[in-house]
Amino acid sequence: MADGPLDVVGVGNAIVDVFSHTDDAFLTRVGLEKGVMTLIDAARAEELYAQMGPGVEMSGGSAGNTMAGLASLGATGAFIGRVHDDQLGRIYRHDIRALGVEFDTPAAISGMPTARCLVFVTPDAHRTMATFLGASTELGAADIDESLIARAQVTYLEGYLWDDPRAKEALLKAATAARQAGRKVAFTLSDPFCVDRHRAEFLDLIAGHIDILFGNEAEITSLYQVDTFDDAMQPLRGHCEIAALTRSEKGSVVLSGADFHVIDAAPVERVVDTTGAGDLYAAGFLFGLTHGRSLAECGRLGSLCAAEIISHVGARPEVSLAELVRSEGL
Amino acid sequence: MADGPLDVVGVGNAIVDVFSHTDDAFLTRVGLEKGVMTLIDAARAEELYAQMGPGVEMSGGSAGNTMAGLASLGATGAFIGRVHDDQLGRIYRHDIRALGVEFDTPAAISGMPTARCLVFVTPDAHRTMATFLGASTELGAADIDESLIARAQVTYLEGYLWDDPRAKEALLKAATAARQAGRKVAFTLSDPFCVDRHRAEFLDLIAGHIDILFGNEAEITSLYQVDTFDDAMQPLRGHCEIAALTRSEKGSVVLSGADFHVIDAAPVERVVDTTGAGDLYAAGFLFGLTHGRSLAECGRLGSLCAAEIISHVGARPEVSLAELVRSEGL
Repeated sequence: MADGPLDVVGVGNAIVDVFSHTDDAFLTRVGLEKGVMTLIDAARAEELYAQMGPGVEMSGGSAGNTMAGLASLGATGAFIGRVHDDQLGRIYRHDIRALGVEFDTPAAISGMPTARCLVFVTPDAHRTMATFLGASTELGAADIDESLIARAQVTYLEGYLWDDPRAKEALLKAATAARQAGRKVAFTLSDPFCVDRHRAEFLDLIAGHIDILFGNEAEITSLYQVDTFDDAMQPLRGHCEIAALTRSEKGSVVLSGADFHVIDAAPVERVVDTTGAGDLYAAGFLFGLTHGRSLAECGRLGSLCAAEIISHVGARPEVSLAELVRSEGL
Repeated sequence: MADGPLDVVGVGNAIVDVFSHTDDAFLTRVGLEKGVMTLIDAARAEELYAQMGPGVEMSGGSAGNTMAGLASLGATGAFIGRVHDDQLGRIYRHDIRALGVEFDTPAAISGMPTARCLVFVTPDAHRTMATFLGASTELGAADIDESLIARAQVTYLEGYLWDDPRAKEALLKAATAARQAGRKVAFTLSDPFCVDRHRAEFLDLIAGHIDILFGNEAEITSLYQVDTFDDAMQPLRGHCEIAALTRSEKGSVVLSGADFHVIDAAPVERVVDTTGAGDLYAAGFLFGLTHGRSLAECGRLGSLCAAEIISHVGARPEVSLAELVRSEGL
């Protein structure tokens, strides 16, 4: 149904991931800080790619991964993001549409090629990312279709987009349109360095526009410039309606007014690659939220989806999450 | 060393594989014959891709996979094949060079895009392939560098290339150059339908130019138009110096004059995707042959490498084959 109701609309960078296995010595040699996402320009992307091992290409991007997870759970959704009219852009559009997610943002026909993220997976399953944002930074306010936003219960915004002034404008337009339509707005802090770059603006954005906040321990302590997780939790109460905070193997904490839940991480036989853990936690959580589940159940759904994604290389689910949820009795 | 000795030079189609999981009903619906490789044109490639699920992109191509396997075993090698100067072509060149394989065939700057193979993996781990050959059919005799061929102990030719008259000329030039340099020529029959299309020419080629023949049961029975594997084995004796014939879970048979060996398949915990089994068998076998191993050992090395590749999705090794060989005491 072309104009029917949707569960979630995601707004994010449209990125093709290039995965390769490497070791810590390689990261040191090429000057990449382990475990974080570094933005790189076209020249640095060429230089790093030339030194990288053989790759496997897979559609990615934070909000795109979340939308893929939601589709796998059986939710309805759409994605807004910018690719170039090139082979990687066609792969990106194919992959997300093949999941049943609407994606109609027009491809750029001039300017930079489709974004790619070089993902270096070390033997300890951690991932270090170097992202060339390319065409995805050309997302602008004109790409935000307000009637599409109004169709979705939740509009989910990716913090990474804040690095570009035009994309920032697009995020604000989407948030405003959602609130005007009586819908909810969710936001993910994306990355501690991203928080560090935009702390004051993020604090204002959350207070003014955000109903549901996602972040991990490093992001939330950076946001409030505190040392411990508990110190960060306190100012959050009242800052937005719902906050879902992930803590890797320690699980997650969900806050909403006086209500709070401490959720265990779902068990994983072997952690292979942590790429997409936060994105898939958000998918599970938002699936629960748009399907009338309690906050505790939302958190457990998030943990389950995150556990699936870290058990293999790649940030898109390899099994039907809907079946996984059923088999776990959730 | 830019002009040092090499173990193997492979000549083949330079193809990027697009893997997707599907079921038998899908194959029937889109009219693909299960388990075989069908050549498709650009329009059919678009049509099939539009119906395919989300994909994972990975460099492939039969001889390219064999060269990747050889590199992982520690052999030295080069690849000759044609990509277009586009994103998929740059991915292909990157991936094979990142393995240490020389690849200097210039990219086409006009004509068709880089070849891609849509690989549909069914739950029984079988793969059904639809290949758009694109730029790879533009390989011609001018791309065969005779001094490169002369550097390698073995020149390995992919039967699939025979479908294009220009590429056929390139194969013949490579085979002739290798023999003139006192080197060996290996050939893989590639596919039963490929054999069916070119039976008479393949029989002549083998008699006149080939020292080492690779084929599976379906290919070899098609070649000699006989009903059983044993019936096919008999005419092979004397047709070429060495034949290595694979039989899936039944293992392989190696023939050379009066000598013959029946090799068991290496055990596999769970067969996930049979793509590349023949290509990696050839890699193990040729590694043995270029490193002074007995024919029986060559066969066992082939079985071991094939077992690794069918235990995961994708036709390029996921672990160091050199370490695998050491751990198995081979």
